[in-house]
Amino acid sequence: MKFGIVIFPTKKLQDLANSYRKRYDPHYALITPHLTLKGPFEAPDEDGKEIASKLQEVAKRFPPFNMTVPKFSSFQPVNNVIYLKVEPTQELEDLHEALHALPFGGQPEFAFVPHITVGQQLSNDEHSDVYGSLRMHQINHEETVDRFHLLYQLDNGMWTVYETFRLGKE
Amino acid sequence: MKFGIVIFPTKKLQDLANSYRKRYDPHYALITPHLTLKGPFEAPDEDGKEIASKLQEVAKRFPPFNMTVPKFSSFQPVNNVIYLKVEPTQELEDLHEALHALPFGGQPEFAFVPHITVGQQLSNDEHSDVYGSLRMHQINHEETVDRFHLLYQLDNGMWTVYETFRLGKE
Repeated sequence: MKFGIVIFPTKKLQDLANSYRKRYDPHYALITPHLTLKGPFEAPDEDGKEIASKLQEVAKRFPPFNMTVPKFSSFQPVNNVIYLKVEPTQELEDLHEALHALPFGGQPEFAFVPHITVGQQLSNDEHSDVYGSLRMHQINHEETVDRFHLLYQLDNGMWTVYETFRLGKE
Repeated sequence: MKFGIVIFPTKKLQDLANSYRKRYDPHYALITPHLTLKGPFEAPDEDGKEIASKLQEVAKRFPPFNMTVPKFSSFQPVNNVIYLKVEPTQELEDLHEALHALPFGGQPEFAFVPHITVGQQLSNDEHSDVYGSLRMHQINHEETVDRFHLLYQLDNGMWTVYETFRLGKE
């Protein structure tokens, strides 16, 4: 089945993201707002336990860290995805790298740009309308990341949590 | 905010439940299929950590256990909820009791009938049509429960996972 590894931010940031996702993100009903650490990858159902045990090892090595969300941004011209920009930090980079050094799920297709998607599959016109207004907003949100989640996808496309991993916890 | 404690069953059982929930359960898009251990309760946002640490203590005390789903059932005449019946076992009872002995969330309103809802808010006619056909099915599914999840509800009604607790794990 399909697995993924994400950070679910606090309720405050999720509610903010959802206020836009509701209108602009067709994945709104499939998963709550998240920062993807390791994109969807295929693995046999029965590998869940082994994957979880490897993630536990990684989580132990990283203490909780701060995450800053300064503003909205967009992947244009690559695609019409609008997102809450998450300030890249050494901690996020290192965690991302550690999760890609594991013997499953392969390597990232793109450079790691930490973000929380709020709009996607927008037409060019929609994108420029929406982003034109959002780019002016200052968000300046800060929170502590103290865990990440292993998810798997159900047949209907929705994502469900397999397990949570607390950072820095023995 | 609103918290809840649930078991998410395996993909196989979730996919089965969703094939009915899609048509018969208005909560289909708000949460993936689950067995509720402790119904929604209010607690301040900042209590998440303390609640999680208490749940960790409970989880440690319970080894993983088997869960059997023999068939569909219904809460009629109390209400028109159709569900996958989960065989009540001492382990489930004890876990349910332990989660209600904690200093938050209060006591259950009803006796504990372990179940995974597949249909609700059905009219009497719908209920008798749907249940009339489902009651004949034999499910006879069995799986191991080795974790439960603390969730919280977002402003849009969707539930997101705060943390997972592995049973019997130090």
